[in-house]
Amino acid sequence: MSESRQEAPTVQHSSASLSLSIIGFGAVGQGVATLMQNVPQIDVVAIADSKGVALKPDLKDVLARKRGGQSISNSDLSTLDVIRAVDHDLVVEVTPTNIDGGEPGLTHVREALKHKRSVVTSNKGPLVVAFDELARLADKNGVALRYEATVGGAMPIISLIRDTLAGTRVLDIRGVLNGTCNYILTRMAQEGLDYDQVLSEAQDMGIAEADPTYDVTGIDTACKVVILANAFFGRHCTFADVRTTGIDRITEDALQLARQRGFSVKLVGDVQELTVSPKLIPIGHPLNVSGTLNAASVLTDTAGEITVAGKGAGSIETASAILSDVLSVMRDRT
Amino acid sequence: MSESRQEAPTVQHSSASLSLSIIGFGAVGQGVATLMQNVPQIDVVAIADSKGVALKPDLKDVLARKRGGQSISNSDLSTLDVIRAVDHDLVVEVTPTNIDGGEPGLTHVREALKHKRSVVTSNKGPLVVAFDELARLADKNGVALRYEATVGGAMPIISLIRDTLAGTRVLDIRGVLNGTCNYILTRMAQEGLDYDQVLSEAQDMGIAEADPTYDVTGIDTACKVVILANAFFGRHCTFADVRTTGIDRITEDALQLARQRGFSVKLVGDVQELTVSPKLIPIGHPLNVSGTLNAASVLTDTAGEITVAGKGAGSIETASAILSDVLSVMRDRT
Repeated sequence: MSESRQEAPTVQHSSASLSLSIIGFGAVGQGVATLMQNVPQIDVVAIADSKGVALKPDLKDVLARKRGGQSISNSDLSTLDVIRAVDHDLVVEVTPTNIDGGEPGLTHVREALKHKRSVVTSNKGPLVVAFDELARLADKNGVALRYEATVGGAMPIISLIRDTLAGTRVLDIRGVLNGTCNYILTRMAQEGLDYDQVLSEAQDMGIAEADPTYDVTGIDTACKVVILANAFFGRHCTFADVRTTGIDRITEDALQLARQRGFSVKLVGDVQELTVSPKLIPIGHPLNVSGTLNAASVLTDTAGEITVAGKGAGSIETASAILSDVLSVMRDRT
Repeated sequence: MSESRQEAPTVQHSSASLSLSIIGFGAVGQGVATLMQNVPQIDVVAIADSKGVALKPDLKDVLARKRGGQSISNSDLSTLDVIRAVDHDLVVEVTPTNIDGGEPGLTHVREALKHKRSVVTSNKGPLVVAFDELARLADKNGVALRYEATVGGAMPIISLIRDTLAGTRVLDIRGVLNGTCNYILTRMAQEGLDYDQVLSEAQDMGIAEADPTYDVTGIDTACKVVILANAFFGRHCTFADVRTTGIDRITEDALQLARQRGFSVKLVGDVQELTVSPKLIPIGHPLNVSGTLNAASVLTDTAGEITVAGKGAGSIETASAILSDVLSVMRDRT
């Protein structure tokens, strides 16, 4: 019961076992399967990708098959068959985000909750489209819906608020929530380069997508604001309620001027305001993180302003956030 | 079970009740009593200060008496009588830190654990002197020993590692853990002032003590390193094992030079190395927080480096960290 913790890797607090499926087997899903190999209390009953389903998978084997470009399927079941009919406790939903309708993730999450399975997801789509419906469905069925990985990857903003700050009143949340934007702004400011040049280099490095619209116009940040506003302020809002300005019209002159005056410019999502826009952050403020890092500051009544920073993306970091959610579901069951 | 949370202040996750005593009634103890007024599930059975014990205190009344300089005592019991003989679940130990022998806190904590009461403390003394003994005593008696408030006040580094990062392996912890030092270094760097001048102003403002030795020579930071090293690396170390250099010999020229090259100088405690010393931190790194803020970075195997920052001192912020620990003990009991 004390907090002593040895160096071993490490599932504390939970001797119970839990069975789960992994729906989606891209980089994040493979990261989750990789981490689950070290957690003997967790039984992976099925893994589904877009082409088929592996039932009772040997994790090492199925990871090797996927990486080798082979099919992982060993059954005739569909993804929805797994979610509905295979007996298990928790669905890890890690299909790609689609904020226009939320599918296929929305159906996966909805069906899992209806069948009294907890859900842990990194997929913003279902939450942006139908947060209230899904939260109510989870409550009604007495199961958990966890989504730490949807906001800031490995940066644990949601568990910070939900668990650690449970005794405080949260007044506002402000965040630097998009690593691509932060990388572009950091390099523009530090090296005096213009937007198009840095974007092009970021695309070459895989930090920005070929079509960067979703990141640089602030859509991705706005989705995260929607999730936090629903989760912690009961705002019942969707993407359309967020006033959003991106970084695509910022000049290097503006960044240099800010820097000379002791500020940096960051794309900030403000959850209480429901805004996303470039803002001046004093150098030395905890939100002023550079490169692809994410950071979020929580303003509370009694604990002051608490900030958490970490890697906002990366498949293993996102998988780590998913594992953290799965372990918290296990703890709450015991 | 979903994470929806309304704006009300807020004790989530815990319908059970818990009885506790508050041992020590200075600024932090009064802060704890103030916050407990809003938590109906918690019953404060006794409050002890150096002059007497209030049994079954009316919190509003006892806070008014203390602030008015009146005695809070309404019984003949001693502090140890309360800890040993009054039936309750948890002792909040908030007497002043004494790292030379740990008393009186050490006896308070030891007796509480022996009597199967959980302990939540902001007092570094007992943990620096006898961490292993106290952790074993808590384990043996099946009760909790929590000490979030001993390291960085409201900055939740311990719960971050214990709960949120439970699925990762922690490789190192580095922290800016003393607000007085950070304030002095920040002003020296930003305003080009010398150490003595800033120290003198910090003393006038109540940010530094009249005798600043404990802070500026790194002793306070070293105590926090000892606590984290015992808690998370099983290091069985004490204060004497930490190689400690303070900030009292740093020149403003060194700080200016670092600044021109894109760095700031911070007093950093490194838990894996067991060192405390001034180090260069790149501007834009999350540890580079200014003023009296504290920050700590946790390097993990799978979640990358996660940093948390917040107010390192302040009676209400420290009380908030204590309340967070008390609520986590309640959650773990259910």
